[in-house]
Amino acid sequence: MTQVYFAAGRALWAEYGGPLQTALAEAGLDATLTDTCPDPAAVDYIIYAPSSPLQDFTPFTGTKAVLSLWAGVERIVGNITLTQPLCRMVDPALTMGMVEWVVGHTLRHHLGMDRHIINPGHRWDNTCPPLARDRPVAMLGMGALGSACADALRALNFPVTGWSRSPRPGCLHGTDGLTTALHTAQIVVTLLPKTPETENLLNAARLALLPRGAVILNPGRGAIIDDDALLGALNTGHIGHATLDVFRTEPLPQDHPYWSHPRVTVTPHIAADTRPASAARVIAENIRRGQAGEPFLHRVDRTRGY
Amino acid sequence: MTQVYFAAGRALWAEYGGPLQTALAEAGLDATLTDTCPDPAAVDYIIYAPSSPLQDFTPFTGTKAVLSLWAGVERIVGNITLTQPLCRMVDPALTMGMVEWVVGHTLRHHLGMDRHIINPGHRWDNTCPPLARDRPVAMLGMGALGSACADALRALNFPVTGWSRSPRPGCLHGTDGLTTALHTAQIVVTLLPKTPETENLLNAARLALLPRGAVILNPGRGAIIDDDALLGALNTGHIGHATLDVFRTEPLPQDHPYWSHPRVTVTPHIAADTRPASAARVIAENIRRGQAGEPFLHRVDRTRGY
Repeated sequence: MTQVYFAAGRALWAEYGGPLQTALAEAGLDATLTDTCPDPAAVDYIIYAPSSPLQDFTPFTGTKAVLSLWAGVERIVGNITLTQPLCRMVDPALTMGMVEWVVGHTLRHHLGMDRHIINPGHRWDNTCPPLARDRPVAMLGMGALGSACADALRALNFPVTGWSRSPRPGCLHGTDGLTTALHTAQIVVTLLPKTPETENLLNAARLALLPRGAVILNPGRGAIIDDDALLGALNTGHIGHATLDVFRTEPLPQDHPYWSHPRVTVTPHIAADTRPASAARVIAENIRRGQAGEPFLHRVDRTRGY
Repeated sequence: MTQVYFAAGRALWAEYGGPLQTALAEAGLDATLTDTCPDPAAVDYIIYAPSSPLQDFTPFTGTKAVLSLWAGVERIVGNITLTQPLCRMVDPALTMGMVEWVVGHTLRHHLGMDRHIINPGHRWDNTCPPLARDRPVAMLGMGALGSACADALRALNFPVTGWSRSPRPGCLHGTDGLTTALHTAQIVVTLLPKTPETENLLNAARLALLPRGAVILNPGRGAIIDDDALLGALNTGHIGHATLDVFRTEPLPQDHPYWSHPRVTVTPHIAADTRPASAARVIAENIRRGQAGEPFLHRVDRTRGY
């Protein structure tokens, strides 16, 4: 009997308990799932979220993996008691949601929709936007989410330049690569993990590399952007608009200048939501792999931090 | 020497003259292109737009085809002097622009962007939208434009039901088919040609078939919609929003209720613009075909009206 401990907290248990039971049964696993801690030494798998009260993993001596319900693991990865294999959530439904948000907001800015959505002067200005093939996009971060978004944008003819921190086929990388990627991008999408190296990646110097009027879309991690630098570049009009889904503090505080800035759209961390049914299937698959001695999916590389 | 007469008017000549000369040369055609009428009996091909002063085609006794720069031919097709083969414009760039508008506004409504773009109360409501796979779309009109839009939406996982007036593989058709298509659609896109049969197709009875809160996107022809019926359904909230790119009178008159209706977005006939360079290549290809005795592309079937 495989012992699975749901340590992600009471609120998430209400949402995930049922889907997880279903997914474990569908995977043919003989597993016991509990949301209260059994004998720690007997726990085979821990299902986890950063908000969990569980912070000391030392007693879980027999645990084969800690399976995060979240894609971002920056709040977990530095926990020195967590020595067990750690897996991130890569939920196909989360990827779909992210692709929809990124393609939708890219097209919104590309087509200049806002001037039609908000048009109190009833202005009939039938200047056509260029075609997508003439709108260069830079995708910063080419992991599972960034690659899926780049593919969907390319299918609509957007020329997408991918950039990742480490070398990847078909992508720019490194500091020089980032300079090249930003130099011509009219729309920049950031889907980088939060690591010490990516914090404030979009600072004043990097924002200055973009052509005037460029648009920033950030559905990834709030800390990638130097907020003061972005506000400065928005104030001068060097950056034409920023549509931001993630912030250093969430919910975004009511007095934050992003709320009232005319060149900023705040979306409330909705770009990519983990969906219980499909996330539960990913968790069950990793438990099946662990029991079969196969390598885990989406295992975190602690030297990279994600 | 093939004689080509550009009869689409002086303003379009400025835009199309150069690209047409280039395209004719690239097609290897030994053609003379003029924007003033030579001997009508000597004209081999007429390049045409509905706004042209040329309305009597009788003198053009040797003309092999009238090639429209416009996709819509409803203002031409009833001209009884026009007995020559008539071809519509099907411009790949026009199709691309249409796909961008349709996918963009579908995603805008699907994601509920407007409540984030206009959010004076700074409300942080992180309710996630459903995934595209749970948002049924009806595509009314499955010609070149409708099919391209349906394909692009399906690539993003939207379940798209296609409807066309006449039977087509994989599409619903006829009156019963329309009822079925409207019954579950949360977003309806109309890309039908304007014919006597499609005028006011979306009337009060048909709008009532849609589920409450459905969204209408009309980038096709203004006359497809019964404007009073739509305004009535918007007033009750039965229709949640209408984003309209085409109107019975354009520019949309300043006193038209669409301008100030909170559930209407007006875009100024920008969904699909013919692009001179790619349209010129389509015209040149049809002239090449005519000279080679091959069938014309996009020839209008006068019994159907498009």
